Amino acid sequence: MRIPKHIGVIPDGNRRWSLLNGMSKEKGYSWGLAPGLMLFKLCQKIGVKELTFYGFTTDNTKRPKIQREAFSKACVEAVEMLSHENAELLVVGNYDSPMFPKELLNYTTRKAFGKGGTKVNFLVNYGWEWDLGNLIENKSTNRKTINNYIKSNDISRVDLIIRWGGRRRLSGFLPIQSIYSDFYVVDKYWPDFNQDQFYEALKWYETQDITLGG
Amino acid sequence: MRIPKHIGVIPDGNRRWSLLNGMSKEKGYSWGLAPGLMLFKLCQKIGVKELTFYGFTTDNTKRPKIQREAFSKACVEAVEMLSHENAELLVVGNYDSPMFPKELLNYTTRKAFGKGGTKVNFLVNYGWEWDLGNLIENKSTNRKTINNYIKSNDISRVDLIIRWGGRRRLSGFLPIQSIYSDFYVVDKYWPDFNQDQFYEALKWYETQDITLGG
Repeated sequence: MRIPKHIGVIPDGNRRWSLLNGMSKEKGYSWGLAPGLMLFKLCQKIGVKELTFYGFTTDNTKRPKIQREAFSKACVEAVEMLSHENAELLVVGNYDSPMFPKELLNYTTRKAFGKGGTKVNFLVNYGWEWDLGNLIENKSTNRKTINNYIKSNDISRVDLIIRWGGRRRLSGFLPIQSIYSDFYVVDKYWPDFNQDQFYEALKWYETQDITLGG
Repeated sequence: MRIPKHIGVIPDGNRRWSLLNGMSKEKGYSWGLAPGLMLFKLCQKIGVKELTFYGFTTDNTKRPKIQREAFSKACVEAVEMLSHENAELLVVGNYDSPMFPKELLNYTTRKAFGKGGTKVNFLVNYGWEWDLGNLIENKSTNRKTINNYIKSNDISRVDLIIRWGGRRRLSGFLPIQSIYSDFYVVDKYWPDFNQDQFYEALKWYETQDITLGG
């Protein structure tokens, strides 16, 4: 089976799932933690080298305080869970902002947990405009140079993006790294994750050719 | 019905269609002209304000000469067809390159045909790295500023992207303007375009909420 080197995950639908299950919107985020760990272990098992989770964005921080606090807490807890695994973690996002959880400042340079291994990137208080802002120093239209100057330059090109929650859009997810990504949408909400959805996405990915626009 | 202001079109699958119909790959491009005009007229009819077609990219120019010549010719002919309509045309792409068809140099600033009206943008010898190259002059991470400094700054945010040919990827299509776009894929190859595919896409679009990442 052709395994993607780098998978991007947009774990959407937590709030809709929460309402559907008779809880207030913000409750849904914590239900996304177990699925995240499950997905990480599946990727580790099949040999995915790099995994990027969409934590929350500068856009998301415009939401009500109670939701903001809930998704920030979930990101901190996700990192805490991951710290017991073999992984190399990098948190990428605007850490100069008060919206960035202080508990994660230590991970804005890549840190290894356990034996290291799978690279895991968390986008936390990430904004596409923040990511592209450094291009002011870019002196060419050379792709390598552009890649070197984006703030997320330690995140490689994404082969496969899987979005849960049914929406078919990138919502600002790594505009440069996702330029050639294959995009797979799972209609189920993220807290309803199960491994069959993941294997279906991989099966679909295997049927895609890789042209990089050529 | 909620009509998208701006639709992006990725008319993919011409070469696969051509092989399937017993012709050599490059023959397929000219069969994409009639569908393009049909789609333009449908958009005009329902009140879409702006339409962007993915002509060819700097990536595509790595293909064999006979294909390059065929898709360049198709772009020139598409503009010729459009010149008999009421439209405002802009061709966006790297016109400093020999790959850019000279016949289209005149349209690298927007020109009105007939009574004008619907804005039509053609991406011709377009490259995402070319588009983002100007960000060297950008002095901030302000979204408006970024939008002003990309070379495609006369192209507005895309509401709905429809890709024919089954592939679920953007392949470098306007990375900034497509950040919040809803992405709809038609499995049929572009030369097999029919209006039902377009109306299905619109029906689907109407069911999508618009959050702009919020």
